[in-house]
Amino acid sequence: MTTLIVANDSSSTEDAENIKKACKGLGTDETVLISILAHRNVAQRKLVRLAYEDIFQENLIQQLRSELSGSFERAICNWTMDPAERDAAFINEALKKETLDYKVIIEIACSRTSEEFHAVKLSYQLLYKHCLEEDVASKTIGNIRRLLVAVVSTYRYDGDEFDESLAHLEADILHQVIEKKAFNDDEIIRILCTRSKKQLCATFSTFRNMYGTAITKGLLADSINEYMTALRTTIRCIKNPRRYLAKVLCHALNDLVAEEHALNRVIISRAEEDLKEISELYFRRNGITLDNSVAKKTSGNYKTFLLALLGNK
Amino acid sequence: MTTLIVANDSSSTEDAENIKKACKGLGTDETVLISILAHRNVAQRKLVRLAYEDIFQENLIQQLRSELSGSFERAICNWTMDPAERDAAFINEALKKETLDYKVIIEIACSRTSEEFHAVKLSYQLLYKHCLEEDVASKTIGNIRRLLVAVVSTYRYDGDEFDESLAHLEADILHQVIEKKAFNDDEIIRILCTRSKKQLCATFSTFRNMYGTAITKGLLADSINEYMTALRTTIRCIKNPRRYLAKVLCHALNDLVAEEHALNRVIISRAEEDLKEISELYFRRNGITLDNSVAKKTSGNYKTFLLALLGNK
Repeated sequence: MTTLIVANDSSSTEDAENIKKACKGLGTDETVLISILAHRNVAQRKLVRLAYEDIFQENLIQQLRSELSGSFERAICNWTMDPAERDAAFINEALKKETLDYKVIIEIACSRTSEEFHAVKLSYQLLYKHCLEEDVASKTIGNIRRLLVAVVSTYRYDGDEFDESLAHLEADILHQVIEKKAFNDDEIIRILCTRSKKQLCATFSTFRNMYGTAITKGLLADSINEYMTALRTTIRCIKNPRRYLAKVLCHALNDLVAEEHALNRVIISRAEEDLKEISELYFRRNGITLDNSVAKKTSGNYKTFLLALLGNK
Repeated sequence: MTTLIVANDSSSTEDAENIKKACKGLGTDETVLISILAHRNVAQRKLVRLAYEDIFQENLIQQLRSELSGSFERAICNWTMDPAERDAAFINEALKKETLDYKVIIEIACSRTSEEFHAVKLSYQLLYKHCLEEDVASKTIGNIRRLLVAVVSTYRYDGDEFDESLAHLEADILHQVIEKKAFNDDEIIRILCTRSKKQLCATFSTFRNMYGTAITKGLLADSINEYMTALRTTIRCIKNPRRYLAKVLCHALNDLVAEEHALNRVIISRAEEDLKEISELYFRRNGITLDNSVAKKTSGNYKTFLLALLGNK
């Protein structure tokens, strides 16, 4: 469920005009920006972007970028973007980092529906004139390339059916791979990256029933091994994306310097989806509400904005 | 260009009623079926299917299947299907064969646009409750699996831009792979299966300019090697799909027993697309027109139907 408090009677023309007014002159009235944008859903924000372009012949997001700065700028601009474009931009940023941020790529590829992720890939092509697969492939090597390319390529089946006997068969294959420590075996990537999420959840739970341990436990490496971490991230994201995202928020709030973008990314991309459930899982994990953690660890307009997205008036 | 002669003033209701009449009684009037269906474009055929369902509460394709038999049945049913569903069915059939028909999969994946092929994948999921990627992956192993899964997975960039320096760089990588006979190197699959077709054509022509030979020449194996053949098929389909399809027609017409489905598949799937150009290439290659070859090698209603699709009244 969404945490957003949406104004149902908004007018996109009025919104655009009020945003323009808030941006006029030397200072910017951030409170007005928050009071409008943090309470518009995805369809309303699109209409505001269109109205802004129409009335002022200016791109709303560019206007916001030129007026604002820091974490608040990043957050409100991301929020105002089309969701598929925003995810495409997150992935592009992850690919451009000196050390490629593979976790962001897995998070987005595995926590969106197939249709949503396909829209991300279309947006990626429009924005960067490349396909996502080629950029992921050309920036990676070895096992991590095989895993990441497969994760972003497949258009997974999104149906609810799953095959119990296939779950047994493939839990067994995965167990053999783990027993033999043959982690670069093609089978592990084939299973994780082509089967539907429902089928994989059945396979993971069969694995636990058959072998008495979670599959991720068998994929712990002695030292830091990116590929093994990426395998575990993929499994966690597929098994329980909300729990995974609650953990991402927890890490981000514990180390805002290293993980500041993650806080922004998860809150903004899930606010209209399932941030309520993620927030509950966060509370269960940490014994403090997500709202309280955000309030403690952020400040200023950034704090006000995130708390508004979290459902605080 | 299409070879189809389309009736612009057709009525889907009348078409449906006339088809029903042609199917009534003991015999079936195949001439009527051909005179209608072979002269309707994809949108008109869809309307006829809908009208038929609406008026008679029957599925038109099932009705045709129950009335007809042999090559003609197969051809007219395939023709009446939605193109994406038809391609999905071709691929499913290729996957179900005792020896998997990987060439059909490559042909469809590489000769359709990214958008068209995505529609095929959606149809595949609706029809078979699996994603195409998982079925390809679970029915193959080793190098051929890596190639085929990559070929069907990527949503290639379809834009016209290409990067000259990248073409040089990747022609060089491909040359090194070939020199070292390291054909199972990840790079060859990465390049062939993630780059856009325009980029790959630039790479192939750079390869020819730099090394004085076509890249496919370097991929000839001493004995029959499915993976090497699949690599060459992929390259040919990307480089010049029409020439490739002209060759498929040529093989099919030379051995209708082994390759009968290929004749049906190529004529039916390209009649409304580029069968004119394919037909010209066929003539240049064989010194006999495609129409004449088809007329010589087929007979009965099947012959009449294929010739009608080829633009013969």
